[in-house]
Amino acid sequence: MERNELIFNGNVKQVYSTDEPDKVIIRYKDVATAFSDIKRATVKSKGIYNNRISAILFSELERCGVSTHYVGMLSDREQICRKLEVIPLMVILRNRIAGSQARRLGLEEGTRPVRPFIDLFYINEKISNPFLNDDHAVSLGIVSYDELDLIRKTALHAGAILTDYLAKAGIELIDAKLRFGKGPDGSLVLIDEIDPDTCRLWDIKTGEKLDKDRFRYDLSGVNAAYKEVSERLSALPGNDNII
Amino acid sequence: MERNELIFNGNVKQVYSTDEPDKVIIRYKDVATAFSDIKRATVKSKGIYNNRISAILFSELERCGVSTHYVGMLSDREQICRKLEVIPLMVILRNRIAGSQARRLGLEEGTRPVRPFIDLFYINEKISNPFLNDDHAVSLGIVSYDELDLIRKTALHAGAILTDYLAKAGIELIDAKLRFGKGPDGSLVLIDEIDPDTCRLWDIKTGEKLDKDRFRYDLSGVNAAYKEVSERLSALPGNDNII
Repeated sequence: MERNELIFNGNVKQVYSTDEPDKVIIRYKDVATAFSDIKRATVKSKGIYNNRISAILFSELERCGVSTHYVGMLSDREQICRKLEVIPLMVILRNRIAGSQARRLGLEEGTRPVRPFIDLFYINEKISNPFLNDDHAVSLGIVSYDELDLIRKTALHAGAILTDYLAKAGIELIDAKLRFGKGPDGSLVLIDEIDPDTCRLWDIKTGEKLDKDRFRYDLSGVNAAYKEVSERLSALPGNDNII
Repeated sequence: MERNELIFNGNVKQVYSTDEPDKVIIRYKDVATAFSDIKRATVKSKGIYNNRISAILFSELERCGVSTHYVGMLSDREQICRKLEVIPLMVILRNRIAGSQARRLGLEEGTRPVRPFIDLFYINEKISNPFLNDDHAVSLGIVSYDELDLIRKTALHAGAILTDYLAKAGIELIDAKLRFGKGPDGSLVLIDEIDPDTCRLWDIKTGEKLDKDRFRYDLSGVNAAYKEVSERLSALPGNDNII
């Protein structure tokens, strides 16, 4: 596969077109950003870990029947993905309530809800990516009620799969930022990345944070945390040969 | 009925205990406040209009089978209501999206959604009354999923009744802030007030604002707008003798 034009240059990822019109190459950088890009740093090898972690988690989801954009690894920082129409929603799956949402609601970090649920945010930087309820998402013309129903079901299903799988690596999935795209046939597909940048991951035994919160809150050991997650997942059966 | 102790002294309303332990007296003041009490003024006779408008609208809801706290008028600024356990939710019924929610979502003032819906806010001033989705309301222990289902159905039903009734007075109901309480048997009851302080009301023909937005945005004629709503509703059949 040939890497062509740079079509998106994000904070932590680049997307390139390829010689196949329905495929892109996603390249992970060694950059960490937080608080809407107010905080930014280089974290050595982070791109390698995230590329690997995302590949492993997308593969597990595919194995369990969840459609994702992941096609295969190209190099240690690059993966081949399907090119899809992006739905401008951030879908946060919450097993526990943590971070800014916990603070906003006056809840203790890591509060367990009655059952896992999703929060919706509209990806629109001009209006600061507002938090939405279902009716807002439909009123804004982003999705129909039926599509939202499918997004909720798929996010909760993917969340359950990821939770079980990460537990095998001694990691608790606290929350996960999921993004969805639409295939040419209108089918719903998980896109973007699934890694310590987009998930809160706590060590199951110690509760130690193994995710971007180490960078957000200056907890040190950012590189070590990403490396730990990557190594634990790589040690699971079938993951030893993912580049 | 005897008016006893002042048990709540709000910005625009006072609540008094009475000689009947399951009843309170609500007294409407001539005060208008906006933007979390940053803006405040006296508006002549506003308390009289709001008392009357709330009484008429609660009576109509009761007539249509919706349970409310309203018992009867006591004086031009006082009504007798049932004393109930207050649910700390603000339930905004939206026929159209207006005000701060429209701005937050990047929508034009008065955007019509696919269908009327409700927005939930947690009444908790310490954390600035945050906007909630259903899962937050349950996670916070405010309501169960079943109670929330009933709240949504009741709010939409009450909204439809109020919309039809106000239309008879040439008024379009844009949105309404509804509050709910629980009876001793756990039953759901509409409480608080329903008037131009808590609803957006536009003249059906001209689109003129006949509500608190006149005060919020310095549109002048605040007293005249409240008076207009009161007089139009009083002119509907059966409302001529409500004190």
